[in-house]
Amino acid sequence: MYIDAALTPADIALLPERDLSDVTCVVFDVLRATSSMITALANGALEIHPARTIEEAWELRARMPDAVLGGERHGDPIEGFDVGNNPLEYTEFPGRKIITTTTNGTIALRACEKAGRVLVGALLNLDALQAAIAHDAKVLLVCAGTFETFSLEDAIGAGALAGRFAEADLTDAAGACVATARAYPTALKGLLAARNGGALAAKGWGSQIEWCAQVSRFDVVGVMSGGIIQAM
Amino acid sequence: MYIDAALTPADIALLPERDLSDVTCVVFDVLRATSSMITALANGALEIHPARTIEEAWELRARMPDAVLGGERHGDPIEGFDVGNNPLEYTEFPGRKIITTTTNGTIALRACEKAGRVLVGALLNLDALQAAIAHDAKVLLVCAGTFETFSLEDAIGAGALAGRFAEADLTDAAGACVATARAYPTALKGLLAARNGGALAAKGWGSQIEWCAQVSRFDVVGVMSGGIIQAM
Repeated sequence: MYIDAALTPADIALLPERDLSDVTCVVFDVLRATSSMITALANGALEIHPARTIEEAWELRARMPDAVLGGERHGDPIEGFDVGNNPLEYTEFPGRKIITTTTNGTIALRACEKAGRVLVGALLNLDALQAAIAHDAKVLLVCAGTFETFSLEDAIGAGALAGRFAEADLTDAAGACVATARAYPTALKGLLAARNGGALAAKGWGSQIEWCAQVSRFDVVGVMSGGIIQAM
Repeated sequence: MYIDAALTPADIALLPERDLSDVTCVVFDVLRATSSMITALANGALEIHPARTIEEAWELRARMPDAVLGGERHGDPIEGFDVGNNPLEYTEFPGRKIITTTTNGTIALRACEKAGRVLVGALLNLDALQAAIAHDAKVLLVCAGTFETFSLEDAIGAGALAGRFAEADLTDAAGACVATARAYPTALKGLLAARNGGALAAKGWGSQIEWCAQVSRFDVVGVMSGGIIQAM
């Protein structure tokens, strides 16, 4: 098993040019896009449509008028949307389709869409992710980042997963994620140390950080195929 | 003091577009370009001209026929050049000008050329670097990488420097470098764990890794100005 990591948005921007046909991509946007997605799927959401832009999200909504429209820009809810990017709100959509667009997470997912498999990465479903990739030969951990920059919380998620495969052949990037994850005694402490964690806490959204820091709360894997994410 | 880090070659490719006029860039290509440069300057080399391409290096040589022509491609010496990228060989050029072109290190240095200050980063002169940036408001640690990918050894160099400023405001990227550096009990163990370290060891060049892993052997700082590196 070979595990690599794409550490920054600039690296992610290069992914569409790469042949990822034999690679399983696991996309981490721990605060909060992928954590919201796993929360939704674990609570019975039917499918999630990640959109690159607000315009694309509205177009999807026009075709699926019953779908929930969610997401964020600069961390805040988008005007006219049904819901923001608060993972705690994503417990409420059993049986529903969800359209979502976020600053980094949905961009990163779509950048991987030609990969052999694309999984939604979060701390919330780490055990399930571990089982899901256990027999894959090549894994790419994709750290969605924040705007143009590297995000600590995504490296912590990626490193927490990579660190579970002691026999794997890790690239330097994957190894640095493992080292970064292990630098914090708990996932919550790591997320609170992240710039994004600080920004969310300053908004009074500490409960969302605590939610996203729960390791393996849900036994569900989200798989994206044809631009649609469903529970595996 | 604010410390950021550019982690990968894709991030470095974006640097020329950024306003770095009030930033001190410290460029790490620990295995081996910047370690060779510090070795050369500490041993009396007059100046170093980092060239982006082999062609540019030959053009510089045409203008400076007495200069030493050095560098590597894929880690190996370049045909017709006087010297490769073995830092141990760079002790031998007191009073000389050196032209050098390497796969990542010289590219990274040149990408920063519009920054307020550009310093050559290595473990070999860590104490001197610490003193040189101690009063700077904004520092960007530039990890040169290997071809298109992140290099563990450069993050270790960057993290070893950033970790010396306990009061600094570190971005997530700089914080991850510190965590990565601290994951290894010694710099040498970290360099040997790096892919580049493994590749050099496989060529029988372990002594070069040991050389580059020496922390603060030299009390010299290399500053690039107008495309020329000199001892500060």
